[in-house]
Amino acid sequence: MDQLEKTVSQMKYDNSGLIPAVIVDCKTRQVLMVAYMNAASLVDTVRTGKTHFWSRSRNKYWMKGESSGHTQQVKAIYTDCDKDTLVIEVEQIGAACHEGYYSCFYRQLTDEGDWKVCAERVLDPKQIYKK
Amino acid sequence: MDQLEKTVSQMKYDNSGLIPAVIVDCKTRQVLMVAYMNAASLVDTVRTGKTHFWSRSRNKYWMKGESSGHTQQVKAIYTDCDKDTLVIEVEQIGAACHEGYYSCFYRQLTDEGDWKVCAERVLDPKQIYKK
Repeated sequence: MDQLEKTVSQMKYDNSGLIPAVIVDCKTRQVLMVAYMNAASLVDTVRTGKTHFWSRSRNKYWMKGESSGHTQQVKAIYTDCDKDTLVIEVEQIGAACHEGYYSCFYRQLTDEGDWKVCAERVLDPKQIYKK
Repeated sequence: MDQLEKTVSQMKYDNSGLIPAVIVDCKTRQVLMVAYMNAASLVDTVRTGKTHFWSRSRNKYWMKGESSGHTQQVKAIYTDCDKDTLVIEVEQIGAACHEGYYSCFYRQLTDEGDWKVCAERVLDPKQIYKK
């Protein structure tokens, strides 16, 4: 076991062996998405420089952008005081959101207590998975 | 049930009834912490304008800053395409981290695969809970 594998093994994973990763734009610090990593996907994220995750809904290991081409180039990785969360600064190719928005967080809570779209799409979502 | 309670009830909570909230500085967009909310703490966060959470480790409802005085004034709340995560922009009083750092994410992964402290403490951690 090398130093990276040791460090990764010492993170606090949840009961499913996962840790949330907050993906942030390296230039603007905008939060782009939150997804989950297991130890293997975190090691691969560091070694390849591209974000890898574990999908809880599809129960599947995946590299961000593997089908869309919208990969994330890793610039820096941070952890918190509890070592149970990651913040990863990336350079985002295309858009992070499969809906065509640059960030998945494109809805803001209004004073009336409802969600309102607060961003413009940067890509036609129909085109995203044709690349 | 009013509009806010309806909106909150439609979020996708995990099996424990929780949703992760990424707390971000409203001026710099720095990620300060990640904590978990249930429906009640999300409603209280909106209604009081101060962040409220559910502590998984202490199994307890809490307002950020209730013992330290380091509250977070809510400026904006966003959700993602899946409605299973929140991003909350706040004005942070004092420091977000109980270790005395402004952000909990004060450690960066080095090229050697180890964590290194990358921020300065803004508060003496011994003083934080004496306020």
